Amino acid sequence: MAMKRALLAVLTFGFALTFGGLATAQTADPLPSWNNGKAKKSIVEFVAKVTKKGSPNFVPPSERIATFDNDGTLWAEQPMYFQLFFALDRVKALSSQHPEWKDKEPFASLLKGDVKGALAGGERPILEIVMATHAGMTSDEFAQIVKDWLATAQHPVTQRPFTEMVYQPMLEVLAYLRANGFKTFIVSGGGIEFMRPWTEEVYGIPSEQVIGSSIKTKFELRDGKPVHVRLSELNFIDDKAGKPVGINHHIGRRPVAAFGNSDGDLEMLQWTAGGTGARFALIVHHTDAVREWAYDRKSHVGQLDKALDEAQTKGWTIVDMKQDWKVIYPPAKR
Amino acid sequence: MAMKRALLAVLTFGFALTFGGLATAQTADPLPSWNNGKAKKSIVEFVAKVTKKGSPNFVPPSERIATFDNDGTLWAEQPMYFQLFFALDRVKALSSQHPEWKDKEPFASLLKGDVKGALAGGERPILEIVMATHAGMTSDEFAQIVKDWLATAQHPVTQRPFTEMVYQPMLEVLAYLRANGFKTFIVSGGGIEFMRPWTEEVYGIPSEQVIGSSIKTKFELRDGKPVHVRLSELNFIDDKAGKPVGINHHIGRRPVAAFGNSDGDLEMLQWTAGGTGARFALIVHHTDAVREWAYDRKSHVGQLDKALDEAQTKGWTIVDMKQDWKVIYPPAKR
Repeated sequence: MAMKRALLAVLTFGFALTFGGLATAQTADPLPSWNNGKAKKSIVEFVAKVTKKGSPNFVPPSERIATFDNDGTLWAEQPMYFQLFFALDRVKALSSQHPEWKDKEPFASLLKGDVKGALAGGERPILEIVMATHAGMTSDEFAQIVKDWLATAQHPVTQRPFTEMVYQPMLEVLAYLRANGFKTFIVSGGGIEFMRPWTEEVYGIPSEQVIGSSIKTKFELRDGKPVHVRLSELNFIDDKAGKPVGINHHIGRRPVAAFGNSDGDLEMLQWTAGGTGARFALIVHHTDAVREWAYDRKSHVGQLDKALDEAQTKGWTIVDMKQDWKVIYPPAKR
Repeated sequence: MAMKRALLAVLTFGFALTFGGLATAQTADPLPSWNNGKAKKSIVEFVAKVTKKGSPNFVPPSERIATFDNDGTLWAEQPMYFQLFFALDRVKALSSQHPEWKDKEPFASLLKGDVKGALAGGERPILEIVMATHAGMTSDEFAQIVKDWLATAQHPVTQRPFTEMVYQPMLEVLAYLRANGFKTFIVSGGGIEFMRPWTEEVYGIPSEQVIGSSIKTKFELRDGKPVHVRLSELNFIDDKAGKPVGINHHIGRRPVAAFGNSDGDLEMLQWTAGGTGARFALIVHHTDAVREWAYDRKSHVGQLDKALDEAQTKGWTIVDMKQDWKVIYPPAKR
């Protein structure tokens, strides 16, 4: 009897610990920066149903692929894409090596501080600026340039480092999905080698799970040392219909959940939502002019028009940033 | 006292189980199909040193990237690449829909059974055969065609299914590395969408860790249903200097271990071995004319010439298949 009781004590103690652990895990809110509402509820319900063994909606862990747009979905994108701030700063930093830029557009306008004028020509001046600042070095050198820039650059409105203009509620979604067996990927129109140097630290997303636009690279031996040289030639534009193509190329299977904020994400959301079984498609709607920015159908950056209509028609989750998010950014680090 | 003893019994029983488990794990040979020799020793020593915390050679789990060529490294490649058998079988299967092939090379020779004649022109006829058999359908349809073919096709010499002509000793290396925190990737000249339908089942490598050659794809909605259409246009050749480019594009960091068997793998091995810290580069040398095939410097398939010289100069691990491998293939399943 004594032995039986002792065993019982040990087992009970053990179970108590286990139950305690479970209770904590179940009652702790995985999305504390989200107000209770339809958006939060839809995320939690989706995760619950696809992870419940035996449920008709169960998704095996290997198929739990979630893809996230970056600009406007994981971090801010106003008043212009942050990678463009990087490019403009690089033009200034490199201008002493390029005396010819003083008389050559779009560089001349840029160096005079006229960003609007420099970019007025649309895609072509942007491409020229990108190639002048993103090509010619090795991939390792470029990664270091990006890191050095991020270490000191500040957003012109908030004065925050750009990596602290990520959305706290979305960081929680990333962590919540991973805690439930999801692999999280970035699928961005931004440069793949612009993002990889910092996505692991900032988002917990390793470089092999980052998909983006790219220029071509060339492998060569320099004095016997192997390097990747970045060439002035576009390789892939990971935007609009390019997003599902990038997903197919890098991941090779259809996501079960996708998160975006603009018409550039529409095809990714269509591809994700168009599969069989449980599916989740979410759009971050920028509705908070006070704490962030409010823009959608007429915006030059992150235009959300067709995708907003389709989200409403198809019942995708639409996040009303002003209503749904308790905070926008994580606490400042410096 | 009784309680103390009982507790002790429970704890002892528990510890005994634990110790028993550990002892088994430590003494079981992770590479049972490898003869004891330099090659096996080099693999085990590399894994031991990069996983030992506090060691100067320690590699954190996120950096434990290992890349494997496929043809000739993970499965056989003689008398010709297995994907070419697939393409030839597809030409036969599709010939009734293409009456014009009777008078058009390389199809005419192929359909008469003259493979050598059909492929005599080098890259061009091969490309024509690939495009005629690999493009025009959706990615999902293509995956099904590959699976259906693998379910019945047999190797002409061994009469085995092609997926049973994988190398048992290499399956053990894959599992051993993964058990030690490595992410294992395929980096093959073969088609990315030809491999993905079966690599998870056969190698334990999920589709998002498969890198290969590709044709372009196009995303579109067909009656509202999103599909990826395979186009008759080359996208990327993942061979020779293309291999490190593919690795950089898909993974975004340098592997610490790479495995190949031919000159097509040389640049991948250079890129891997050229980094700082502990590095591992291995070449499978096909030396067993009885159990497999013996070929190297003069072979038309899987030529191993420059890479063999460089492996010897740089002290990379060279597997002598005849000496180092106890068995070649896993036990037959059917």
